[in-house]
Amino acid sequence: MTAPVTRQITLVRRPTGIPVPEDFALVEVPRPVPGPGEILVRMRVGSCDPAIRGFLDDRPSYLPPVALGAPINGMSLGEVVESNNADWPVGTLLRTFAVWSEYYVVGADALGIERVEQAPGVPLQHYMGALGPVGLTAWVGLFEIGKAKAGDTVLVSAAAGATGSTVVQLAKAAGCRVIGMAGGAAKAQIVRDLGADVAIDYRAEPDLSAAIHKAAPDGIDVYFDNVGGETLDAVLPLMRLHGRIAVCGMIAQYNDADNPHGNRNLWQLVVNRLTMRGFITYDHPEVLGEAQAMLDRLFAEGKLKPLENVRDGLEKLPQAFIELMSGKTTGKTLVLI
Amino acid sequence: MTAPVTRQITLVRRPTGIPVPEDFALVEVPRPVPGPGEILVRMRVGSCDPAIRGFLDDRPSYLPPVALGAPINGMSLGEVVESNNADWPVGTLLRTFAVWSEYYVVGADALGIERVEQAPGVPLQHYMGALGPVGLTAWVGLFEIGKAKAGDTVLVSAAAGATGSTVVQLAKAAGCRVIGMAGGAAKAQIVRDLGADVAIDYRAEPDLSAAIHKAAPDGIDVYFDNVGGETLDAVLPLMRLHGRIAVCGMIAQYNDADNPHGNRNLWQLVVNRLTMRGFITYDHPEVLGEAQAMLDRLFAEGKLKPLENVRDGLEKLPQAFIELMSGKTTGKTLVLI
Repeated sequence: MTAPVTRQITLVRRPTGIPVPEDFALVEVPRPVPGPGEILVRMRVGSCDPAIRGFLDDRPSYLPPVALGAPINGMSLGEVVESNNADWPVGTLLRTFAVWSEYYVVGADALGIERVEQAPGVPLQHYMGALGPVGLTAWVGLFEIGKAKAGDTVLVSAAAGATGSTVVQLAKAAGCRVIGMAGGAAKAQIVRDLGADVAIDYRAEPDLSAAIHKAAPDGIDVYFDNVGGETLDAVLPLMRLHGRIAVCGMIAQYNDADNPHGNRNLWQLVVNRLTMRGFITYDHPEVLGEAQAMLDRLFAEGKLKPLENVRDGLEKLPQAFIELMSGKTTGKTLVLI
Repeated sequence: MTAPVTRQITLVRRPTGIPVPEDFALVEVPRPVPGPGEILVRMRVGSCDPAIRGFLDDRPSYLPPVALGAPINGMSLGEVVESNNADWPVGTLLRTFAVWSEYYVVGADALGIERVEQAPGVPLQHYMGALGPVGLTAWVGLFEIGKAKAGDTVLVSAAAGATGSTVVQLAKAAGCRVIGMAGGAAKAQIVRDLGADVAIDYRAEPDLSAAIHKAAPDGIDVYFDNVGGETLDAVLPLMRLHGRIAVCGMIAQYNDADNPHGNRNLWQLVVNRLTMRGFITYDHPEVLGEAQAMLDRLFAEGKLKPLENVRDGLEKLPQAFIELMSGKTTGKTLVLI
């Protein structure tokens, strides 16, 4: 009799710049066995996030780096298939920070673990996207960090991306004026279709500051920053007095951590008394219930359309992640297992 | 009969880098006459502030630039000598944002105008320093923006400067662990004498990050940033989770606005979920009463010793300002008129 196995995606070598297929391997290892109080989860939806790029470098981040030969860390949505914990019976759907593995074992205290209640007729993968961590991140950054309210002018970078595309829709639903930036005419059109008042194709603009100023002559109240770098420098002098910058990520830095863009306009923080704040969604558990309820309601009303880039099969995870980090994708990159 | 005159310091040309005497002139002009509701003020204490450097460039800041030939803008402490406003009778002492002029006219709505109550035996100039705008700025940045509390580790740049020297003393009085940075052994000794737990002479440190890390192995809760630039980059990775950076000024940028240091470590905002916030003291009127009361109390108890660099005579204002901007001074630079 053969012992059960599981397939995993492991880190073979640390990427330089944008990852390549050779940085990853698909391996088969013995399926882990849950200990007392633990559960065995079968991955159903895997998530590709820019933050994963940070875990692949051998430098301190908010989590330790992935070890060479170890499976990649990531958020996933899974189903309990074996349980030693009465709170998490077989069949429970859950999200958790785990590893890129068909099967994985977690305890009830796993990072970010939470139950998923699938509403009838709603595709499961949405709960990893606009109805899940992506939507919660957009909500926390926009409303809890950015303090956006009706009438504010909201600027979003990477607006055709997973979080950005959700921010655009949430800000519109809240009565804000929304300007989305994205790279390329096709992405700009997607941003427009999501409801943005203005979509800026930054690749087509010789002077990004001028384009933003034209779109928001009275300035920006909230900048939802997904990219950092030169874009942040272009935005800083265009912020309104007491403006807020919610820093969700700095993708412009992740692929080139040893030579990031040097921001030269930080003195604008004093000029316009700006608040710039980095955040992680799960630092704000007290608002997540309210956030989830709003996401579910807007989806039911047709005001929130999840933008997704979906692949099939565990073995597609590295390629999907590489495409994400190459800036080619739109919406949330998910892999159905 | 000769019409009364007033002497003023005017801007002759816009400085390049650190200002030089030739950028300024001492002129005599007719003394202004107060209109209905206005008051004529005789300047008693003039204030040199790094922020003035920003007004001398022809670029937008939080105030319009000083016009060529016009008197320099600045905070001053003065005495009402002629009044068309019953709320501001002759003899009243006041602080206001005005001009470098022996006599000036203001209305009751002048920027930052407020009465000064001189306690018996307290030198008037302290009310432009640690018992005035300097102390209020230190208080607002440390407690309102930085949320410093007993047990926190507080780092201060330009700690032998006007604001920094006050922050060091306020933070100590609040039960914080205090690390002050200053340039040169003499300034570091002053910071130590003010009560800092550690004083770092950044000019003597080949690796500023290493020196800060040694002084605060568990990281920094609050960074009171007076300088920006490379120092900010050195500090960012050493901040503790949910740390706060109160950005009071970026003196490292003022003298070289066209070629400021590019900050490369902003992604630490996300890693450690930092809040970085620029502020202007007078945006926070609701806390200034509490702040002033604490400053007065600490001074009376001998726990707050104003650090000042005092000159005599209106004509000394440009040279005092030039020395301030050259980084040679310690404490608050004031000119008695």
